[in-house]
Amino acid sequence: FPSRLPHVGTTIFTVMSALAAEHGAVNLGQGFPDFGCDPALTDAVTRAMQAGHNQYPPMAGVPALREAVAAKIEALHGRRYDAGAEITITAGATQAILTAILATVQPGDEVIVLEPCYDSYVPNIELAGGVVVRVPLTPGSFRPDFGKIAAAITPRTRLLIINTPHNPSATVWTAEDMRTLEELLAPTDVLLISDEVYEHMVFDGAEHQSAARFPGLAARAFIVSSFGKTFHVTGWKVGTVAAPAALTAEFRKVHQFNVFTVNTPMQHGLADYLRNPAPYLQLPAFYQAKRDLFRQGLEGSRLKLLPSTGSYFQCVDISAVSDLNEADFCQWLTREIGVAAIPLSAFYGGGFDQRVVRFCFAKKDETLRAALERLRRL
Amino acid sequence: FPSRLPHVGTTIFTVMSALAAEHGAVNLGQGFPDFGCDPALTDAVTRAMQAGHNQYPPMAGVPALREAVAAKIEALHGRRYDAGAEITITAGATQAILTAILATVQPGDEVIVLEPCYDSYVPNIELAGGVVVRVPLTPGSFRPDFGKIAAAITPRTRLLIINTPHNPSATVWTAEDMRTLEELLAPTDVLLISDEVYEHMVFDGAEHQSAARFPGLAARAFIVSSFGKTFHVTGWKVGTVAAPAALTAEFRKVHQFNVFTVNTPMQHGLADYLRNPAPYLQLPAFYQAKRDLFRQGLEGSRLKLLPSTGSYFQCVDISAVSDLNEADFCQWLTREIGVAAIPLSAFYGGGFDQRVVRFCFAKKDETLRAALERLRRL
Ligand SMILES: CSCCC(=O)C(=O)O
Ligand SMILES: CSCCC(=O)C(=O)O
Repeated sequence: FPSRLPHVGTTIFTVMSALAAEHGAVNLGQGFPDFGCDPALTDAVTRAMQAGHNQYPPMAGVPALREAVAAKIEALHGRRYDAGAEITITAGATQAILTAILATVQPGDEVIVLEPCYDSYVPNIELAGGVVVRVPLTPGSFRPDFGKIAAAITPRTRLLIINTPHNPSATVWTAEDMRTLEELLAPTDVLLISDEVYEHMVFDGAEHQSAARFPGLAARAFIVSSFGKTFHVTGWKVGTVAAPAALTAEFRKVHQFNVFTVNTPMQHGLADYLRNPAPYLQLPAFYQAKRDLFRQGLEGSRLKLLPSTGSYFQCVDISAVSDLNEADFCQWLTREIGVAAIPLSAFYGGGFDQRVVRFCFAKKDETLRAALERLRRL
Repeated sequence: FPSRLPHVGTTIFTVMSALAAEHGAVNLGQGFPDFGCDPALTDAVTRAMQAGHNQYPPMAGVPALREAVAAKIEALHGRRYDAGAEITITAGATQAILTAILATVQPGDEVIVLEPCYDSYVPNIELAGGVVVRVPLTPGSFRPDFGKIAAAITPRTRLLIINTPHNPSATVWTAEDMRTLEELLAPTDVLLISDEVYEHMVFDGAEHQSAARFPGLAARAFIVSSFGKTFHVTGWKVGTVAAPAALTAEFRKVHQFNVFTVNTPMQHGLADYLRNPAPYLQLPAFYQAKRDLFRQGLEGSRLKLLPSTGSYFQCVDISAVSDLNEADFCQWLTREIGVAAIPLSAFYGGGFDQRVVRFCFAKKDETLRAALERLRRL
């Protein structure tokens, strides 16, 4: 039978993690912490299991968790979402994004992605029968090019997907960027997916500008976040979608027939743990220290550091180190130097060669030091 | 924007559970146990969390769990699946079924469902752009009508979905049924989803006939199961798909861009717990006792008991009790009598009135007794 995704193989993250394991390389490829989470969080899950919270929760999520999410968004961004009708708990951000796309995109509808972008967006659109419209971020700076975005919008545009803090470029959209987008979309019916999974990893005093802060964006947006990224539990696969009631209603129609609902004890544990804001308020400083450790270790090397203002990631230009393209370089680096990275070409539709690779610094300091020792051989 | 699922509301299970909660009714509607799971299982999950198994597992699932699943299928059904290339861990059976459909059905492909059927199948097919072909099970007996199935197959048929033990009818396909299907499909390219989530709930000495036992079926089948149903943890949302490598490869392309992967600590806990077969080998007797308690309690009432040979469910004909159609009857029963049930019409495409409702007996004996006391008022 013909493949629904003929151009798709195994995700680059799986491929590079497997290669890293095979070669005993330090894995700075796939974006996940190699340190533990707060024992208070796992204890809360254990208590939930022992209290018998092991059967189906309500389809949209455990009410206490939806309330906690609504309260957090209100405290941080000043918009009040209705926990009953506007917050849905998902099996991670990836499931949230596919579900939002399946719920809104009719065959033939156009969906704009800003490249480079996370590798699930394009196959998600294809599965919905949508037409992928690729708009590049500005080469070099990775800043949004609003002229190009405006030019890509047609009467068939159903959806635009944005992501800030941005994976892989580690850039962060400013309030000005968000306002510009708000004005640009004002005369249109274009819906928005705002992928904000790195919302708590912003550095040098930068502030995360959630779409929730901009009424003209929030009114059309599915705002996606991830407890996996926020609380160092990427394997738990619990995320959230905040969206106006009319959008949420359509989202849930698909959600209920995709995963139906999400792990009950994890939801109860997270609801409990969210009562204390300290863990997520500390994240900018925590991750900035890791970014700085990693950057300082590469200073004076021939890997050219690009700015990193947010996310788990540090991009570097490899031009001065190697003639290989970035994909081959990552293979070579993993096998020969013993450090895994992700080529930026994996975030583009094809044919791109920017000589840039992405390292993940969401790792123990000792892991980063081990990687740096190897990278300094370059 | 136009709905992708215009005919879909909230699932009947959510609606009836909410109504039951609102009216303090005994909830024999949605299929989930109201008793706890084995503490050995939750302890295994706690150990996994404490051991640091909280980050992304491999995309297809934790290897030890896939091995345990392959070993279990081999022990029970005599077919050896390759744990690396043929077993995938899913976020529950519902996600497995949507993913298999998205991975195989091109827009315009026909998919045969046997009605009554689980309420996610039809919207899943619609999301993939497939054409739903409804074939009724034999009215009254709910036996497969192979003549009708054969007549429904066309060159455009991509997929057939079967389900045994069957929800909602509580019938179980025999080895003869499976062999007949095997022969019927032999000259075709039709793929199969075999929904076997109630595989361990079979009564009166009946045996579950997995598609894995029939080479001509296994070679074309996605065999779907659910740890939630098997181990009384419906809220954990962990299921499995066993399928030949070529089918699994396409399945995983979609899976990785749907949920990416599944809760890590639950997977480790389940892998650990599966080393002991006793818990699932005891299930037929355990659930048969509940079925018998429930049936005995209704003997002599005017609710006419249909056979129940497998699953969580007991269907009853309400004709002698009420003139209401089955949907209105379930509403009335929940509000006025205080027992929630599911109308069989919810499992049909529309317009069906068979005067049959479904009760779930996967409940504590005291819950069943409380329901019976109320039902005897009828
Ligand atoms: C879902 S695996 C990839 C994790 C991630 O977000 C990344 O590395 O970009
Ligand atoms: C996923 S909620 C419904 C549970 C179930 O399988 C049923 O009640 O039929």
